[in-house]
Amino acid sequence: MTAVNAVARGELAALYGPVADDLPRVDALIASLVQVEFPWLRRMLESTLGGGGKRLRPAIALLAGRLGRYDLELLVPLAASVELLHTATLVHDDVIDAAPKRRGRPTAAALFNNASSVMLGDYLFAHAAEFVTRTGHVQVIRNFTDTLRVMAQGELAQDIAAFEYSRDVQRYLDRIHGKTASLFATAAENGALVTGAPEREVRALRRFGAQIGIAFQIVDDVLDFAATAEELGKPAGSDLLAGTLTLPALLYMESAPDDNPVRRAFAGTRRRANLQRAVADIRASDLLEQSMATARRFADEARAALDALPAGEPRATLDGLVDYVLARRS
Amino acid sequence: MTAVNAVARGELAALYGPVADDLPRVDALIASLVQVEFPWLRRMLESTLGGGGKRLRPAIALLAGRLGRYDLELLVPLAASVELLHTATLVHDDVIDAAPKRRGRPTAAALFNNASSVMLGDYLFAHAAEFVTRTGHVQVIRNFTDTLRVMAQGELAQDIAAFEYSRDVQRYLDRIHGKTASLFATAAENGALVTGAPEREVRALRRFGAQIGIAFQIVDDVLDFAATAEELGKPAGSDLLAGTLTLPALLYMESAPDDNPVRRAFAGTRRRANLQRAVADIRASDLLEQSMATARRFADEARAALDALPAGEPRATLDGLVDYVLARRS
Repeated sequence: MTAVNAVARGELAALYGPVADDLPRVDALIASLVQVEFPWLRRMLESTLGGGGKRLRPAIALLAGRLGRYDLELLVPLAASVELLHTATLVHDDVIDAAPKRRGRPTAAALFNNASSVMLGDYLFAHAAEFVTRTGHVQVIRNFTDTLRVMAQGELAQDIAAFEYSRDVQRYLDRIHGKTASLFATAAENGALVTGAPEREVRALRRFGAQIGIAFQIVDDVLDFAATAEELGKPAGSDLLAGTLTLPALLYMESAPDDNPVRRAFAGTRRRANLQRAVADIRASDLLEQSMATARRFADEARAALDALPAGEPRATLDGLVDYVLARRS
Repeated sequence: MTAVNAVARGELAALYGPVADDLPRVDALIASLVQVEFPWLRRMLESTLGGGGKRLRPAIALLAGRLGRYDLELLVPLAASVELLHTATLVHDDVIDAAPKRRGRPTAAALFNNASSVMLGDYLFAHAAEFVTRTGHVQVIRNFTDTLRVMAQGELAQDIAAFEYSRDVQRYLDRIHGKTASLFATAAENGALVTGAPEREVRALRRFGAQIGIAFQIVDDVLDFAATAEELGKPAGSDLLAGTLTLPALLYMESAPDDNPVRRAFAGTRRRANLQRAVADIRASDLLEQSMATARRFADEARAALDALPAGEPRATLDGLVDYVLARRS
């Protein structure tokens, strides 16, 4: 399985503890989608579904499922629905961003064309929805559709906000809730619901998912500045270069509210040069560390949410994922 | 309500008989989606959901619902899910086709941009899925997700096939099943399922929907050639001009297999001029009438499927819709 190739088996086992051995079943279910009649569709699916990734979202769904009756007949399609919804949104995001690469590999939008990528994303949405339907649990299905709505709205907000100056940190947090944290929250909540966990634990897991999701996205946005172009598979600071203000850039603007390269660029003055200057400034500053401090606050809230769960290996593993999210470099 | 504006009340009442008075509730549910917090999103939704249309698909869902317990609490969201799935696919199709207008109005892709239109379509998919979830009927939800998959696959097939010569009538019929008829089939089947109709009638309605859907799309494809640019809101023959071979064009190619303007255009020779020549040839020929004869065969099969239903006003109204689909001019 790709995920197992991407991350050493030992690392996965340590990270995902009591569900590590079951994640390959999720991968296998997703991989089964490439078995279609049409060769052109098979090629599109192979290149899109073979990208690897750490399967963090499905792992959270399975770990939440460890709190009640751990029924893999329901949890494997549920976890696959979460991962596939994530993949489908990436395919559509890449159309939007006209991104040539993701994780160092060409995107579907670059390999095929925008039109096919739109439909490929829809096709993956449909399969994700079909997987979640297999749980037969109407509230779980409803959470899924609600997440799709919130994610689309979050991406729309980001698109609308590009090259607008009047962003602030609260709106940034709202946006990354929609774009990223809502799916983490649903992964955790749906895992708990499917498995029949008590309502108090279901609510705690939703909260855990939402908070770790925010932390995850802030770290992502920090890495976009901090990592090397080689690690990222794209230029450092590419979000800002595309006009998207993430936390480090917002803090940078707060630090010089009257005049700075971002403001000049957004006003249309030597856009590229000013943004590149801003990226260099941010990389050289302590704003990335300040952003990480914010990520750690959300991570602490994620950990606090776990207090409502019974002690044991699933809870300890979820706790360990919080550390992992903060420490990751890619 | 827009649908009521678009078609005179009397005509709607005659066409949709025992469900005509309930369609405004479907419109109202869809229209309620524009009540969102963000002004930019509200504007997008207003322009997308206000386009009118005859509400043929939701009417079929409600009519199917007349065969069992006619529960509008379930049938209104179901019918809305069908119409909204249709709308969402149109939004994505217009991204793909880069269509400036539909029904004589600017498309979302033209008004906003491709990126926003992709996400707007996803947002509408999510609401459509939420509506169908309100039925609480897992098989109904599953049919919905299956239809989304088949529709996306049908559009992908059309995109892949553009400017390929080796199309034949059977593949055209497969493609329009995916693109159009699958949603008609699901509208009819889901209406029957929600309402608790006997299985034999559920199957008959699915078949009815699939056959009337094929007839509907063939008529659409004929109108693309036959209607005036004013009626269409786009140039006559625009499908062929965009490289999509529909039934009239396929029959035209069969009529001159060795050499004709379409083949020359597809081989890259004076593409635009050759395709315009082909459009003029087709308009002057009896190929549109031949295509309509094919549509009538599917319409007859749709009528035959109704034999399995009890006699009465719902069945008679569905029968009348078959005539309407064949006779319509827009």
